[in-house]
Amino acid sequence: MQGSYTVADYLVDRLSECGIAHIFGVPGDYNLQLLDHIVTHPHLNWVGCANELNAAYAADGYARARGAAALVTTFGVGELSALNGVAGSCAEYLPVIHIVGAPCLKTQRAGDLVHHTLGDGEFQRFQRMSAEITCSQALLTPENACREIDRVLHDMLTQRKPGYLQLPADVAKISVQPPVNVITPTLPPVHPDQLDALRNALRDKIRGSHRVALLADFLAQRFGAQPVLQAWMDENPLPHASLMMGKGLFDETNPGFVGLYCGKSSTLRVLHAIEEADLVFCVGVKFIDTITCGFSQNLSQEQTVDVQPDAVRIGEQWFHGIPMSTTLTLLQQLCRTDLPRQPVIPAPEPRVPRQLGLLDQDALWRVVQDALKPGDIIIADQGTASFGAASLVLPHGAKMVVQPLWGSIGFALPAAYGVQTALPGRRVIVIIGDGAAQLTIQELGSMLRDGLKPIILLLNNRGYTVERAIHGAEQSYNDIAQWNWTHLPQAMSESCQAQSWRVSEAVQLQSVLETASCASRLSFIEVMLPQNDIPALLSAVTTSLEQRNNQG
Amino acid sequence: MQGSYTVADYLVDRLSECGIAHIFGVPGDYNLQLLDHIVTHPHLNWVGCANELNAAYAADGYARARGAAALVTTFGVGELSALNGVAGSCAEYLPVIHIVGAPCLKTQRAGDLVHHTLGDGEFQRFQRMSAEITCSQALLTPENACREIDRVLHDMLTQRKPGYLQLPADVAKISVQPPVNVITPTLPPVHPDQLDALRNALRDKIRGSHRVALLADFLAQRFGAQPVLQAWMDENPLPHASLMMGKGLFDETNPGFVGLYCGKSSTLRVLHAIEEADLVFCVGVKFIDTITCGFSQNLSQEQTVDVQPDAVRIGEQWFHGIPMSTTLTLLQQLCRTDLPRQPVIPAPEPRVPRQLGLLDQDALWRVVQDALKPGDIIIADQGTASFGAASLVLPHGAKMVVQPLWGSIGFALPAAYGVQTALPGRRVIVIIGDGAAQLTIQELGSMLRDGLKPIILLLNNRGYTVERAIHGAEQSYNDIAQWNWTHLPQAMSESCQAQSWRVSEAVQLQSVLETASCASRLSFIEVMLPQNDIPALLSAVTTSLEQRNNQG
Repeated sequence: MQGSYTVADYLVDRLSECGIAHIFGVPGDYNLQLLDHIVTHPHLNWVGCANELNAAYAADGYARARGAAALVTTFGVGELSALNGVAGSCAEYLPVIHIVGAPCLKTQRAGDLVHHTLGDGEFQRFQRMSAEITCSQALLTPENACREIDRVLHDMLTQRKPGYLQLPADVAKISVQPPVNVITPTLPPVHPDQLDALRNALRDKIRGSHRVALLADFLAQRFGAQPVLQAWMDENPLPHASLMMGKGLFDETNPGFVGLYCGKSSTLRVLHAIEEADLVFCVGVKFIDTITCGFSQNLSQEQTVDVQPDAVRIGEQWFHGIPMSTTLTLLQQLCRTDLPRQPVIPAPEPRVPRQLGLLDQDALWRVVQDALKPGDIIIADQGTASFGAASLVLPHGAKMVVQPLWGSIGFALPAAYGVQTALPGRRVIVIIGDGAAQLTIQELGSMLRDGLKPIILLLNNRGYTVERAIHGAEQSYNDIAQWNWTHLPQAMSESCQAQSWRVSEAVQLQSVLETASCASRLSFIEVMLPQNDIPALLSAVTTSLEQRNNQG
Repeated sequence: MQGSYTVADYLVDRLSECGIAHIFGVPGDYNLQLLDHIVTHPHLNWVGCANELNAAYAADGYARARGAAALVTTFGVGELSALNGVAGSCAEYLPVIHIVGAPCLKTQRAGDLVHHTLGDGEFQRFQRMSAEITCSQALLTPENACREIDRVLHDMLTQRKPGYLQLPADVAKISVQPPVNVITPTLPPVHPDQLDALRNALRDKIRGSHRVALLADFLAQRFGAQPVLQAWMDENPLPHASLMMGKGLFDETNPGFVGLYCGKSSTLRVLHAIEEADLVFCVGVKFIDTITCGFSQNLSQEQTVDVQPDAVRIGEQWFHGIPMSTTLTLLQQLCRTDLPRQPVIPAPEPRVPRQLGLLDQDALWRVVQDALKPGDIIIADQGTASFGAASLVLPHGAKMVVQPLWGSIGFALPAAYGVQTALPGRRVIVIIGDGAAQLTIQELGSMLRDGLKPIILLLNNRGYTVERAIHGAEQSYNDIAQWNWTHLPQAMSESCQAQSWRVSEAVQLQSVLETASCASRLSFIEVMLPQNDIPALLSAVTTSLEQRNNQG
């Protein structure tokens, strides 16, 4: 068998073909032999993480940056530790293949009492758990391995959700033939009559509309619609906005871009442009509580065309089986030919300057805004970080990574590890609170080991400020252990390639961000903030959440 | 409703009644109102952990020390992060109640697109995931809350496995009556005829045996049989041994205690005492791969009486529905009246002294052995730590915590947090490898915040040595980020109450352990060890594991 082409070879070749060049995970005794195939593959790199949850977050970030990612864990202990991260990828539509090294089929079929099981001879319960949070799963066997690898990867790429492959140690070594074709996501075929019906319905809607607007969100990014959307807005700049999950979808310097839509807490300019339009194209939008300020969106069914990944709704009528790209191409054409003359989009209000002294939320985000550069990637953790970052106006080419639907605190630091690994030439700015950072801090060590150079803003407000804003502002359960944050980079790296600062004044932060921008090392900036100060948008959101907890 | 007695009050009163005084977890927006009831309860303390996996491990450790534990997380993100820890409690029979704060029932029933869900209106998938790793589950509603709390807690206490309660924020506030009875685990009633049949069968077996031995393991501890076992051995010292999962079950200074049974890798004294007996009482034993050196136990069905929590096997015959305590009481009586005269148990071989210089595995465990004191609790992580610690002879009253079935690395540090919280007056010694410690290191900060004073031995062998021993000794995937370990306690505590050392010679370790014993602060000792040196027992185990991965 030595030297022959195996299931493990087939799998790693398929991963490479999906555009994956880095595989995240943690070694374990049932996956070590697969790792041999990863470390020797010419186009793959192994990225060992400090634990499996962090590896899952890193893979999620990598998938956001590169379109797909792979995560390798070991049976039971490893895979279960990763589930929260994989579930986040499922909620937020990131194709991450979770490959679990498992005991030999012979051991499984005998029901042997081996470690990393519940000691009950049952080997499929962990796959059943993963089935709740992945779109496709397989236990690989000698008979099905290649077919099932292809099926699960195909489903993952088509549905933009995680997949699960359980690879027993013996199956990895089975000799097979290399792949001959390429896995391609399926787009449903659209019948010309169906397309005509959709075109006519959209044309009628567009012709009768005096004020048309575009509201797009994360599913547009996930299903590859960003280029066509941007081209459409460049050609025909309708008033347009994204919600928070899709922030960074649009070029925010485009004259038609009006800002962030977040229901009743949107700026007046955004409310006017979106809610007061007769017709709003909603592209890839899900109205989630956290991004709509508690479902406060005021958009009627009649007023909206809802463009989803494979269906469109016009008023009350659904058209199923239409890919988003097909609908968007139609819309772009119809806006060119059939759109009535639209009112001029008013210019944004100029920002009112303010004298900055000690740092508070308002001052923090003003300083961050001024420090942003084209092409930056801002990764903001759920909480004060993300709801503050939501107010930033992104420079040309800048991106933002947030996780408002799944909303798992601690996500941002390992996710940034994945993003920076995928895009080593981009400037990555991580913004995360102190409570959140404690959940996943060990990945700082991995970033330092790999010589990565993100700028990390650690917002120290002495506890879970987002929770204080919801309930129990003075309760001890919202306190955390107080750390010496600026000592951490040195503690987590033997040959520390990092600079650390603690700042409490706006001018200090300005100066440090300038230094950090020129640095050839990771920058770790502890930003001291008042304990109960929160961004205005978060205040509106947390009030709505607490109301919902108190309902009924 | 203000001031009335609610479901949340009922639940926390029931937890207190189960002997739980500390509740581990992480706040989240769906559990905050439950936390209000915990922090104000006269007999409960909230122990906030840095993340949910660590909280689950801490709860597991607490249950090992106090018999039951509680873990509180928030819906989705929090609960899924804890699953690996809860699964470990399930595999190793620890009653931990996992309470998940959830969205209001009204929100759930409407299928609202709220955060911490997959955004698909489905709210029961996480409970289904937990059902795979808990013995009993409930979604609490206004109609069922008290009954279901009682049922799940009863199942948990009876089966000694984790339970799952999903508590919607609105249900927590429903007004109910306080409990009137006490939850008591069920023992099956045994019919006198059944007992007679068992007694007769056991008597026949005992009368015909010239060499009788006792082998007990973890299920004896979990089902409360330790006192009766120890009383039996004090009265009638048969040759007896435990396996690794139950190490600490017996007083190892008892003249009948022969050592650790681990299949073919047992000492000759243990092999002689156990495998060469005509009759071996196996009490609460599961023969798992890691503790039997790959199923190398050489004990026939004919030779053994297998005493399980609610069944007994004598030769080929099973007696079902007999509680372990009933069987053990019978056995103790029969050994008093019917046991033939037994050969004298040979004394153990004296330990061969050795000149100790630079630390290696052999020297490390010799130094640790000499430093042990009566009543110590040793918590050893799976890997070089646990398989080295397996060779220790425990002083009177000392206990050991290991996790050889579930075998999740990183467990020991947070588990020690739970143990030390449960038993603040005991000396806790944590032994953990560097790769393992990176998974869960943030709980060091929680221990320092709470002023706990364990002795932590961080075994620095530059990577995942247990994995190197199985496969890929020189592969880069078994490397980890190199940290400045002795800097960590200071980094993770603002007012650091810790002492740190790095030692590479045996005499240094001896001296530091003496200092640590008198210290009023947490002691963190980085022990430098050769990268590929492993304890002899681990070598035999890893060879057997790699053979199984290569089978088929």
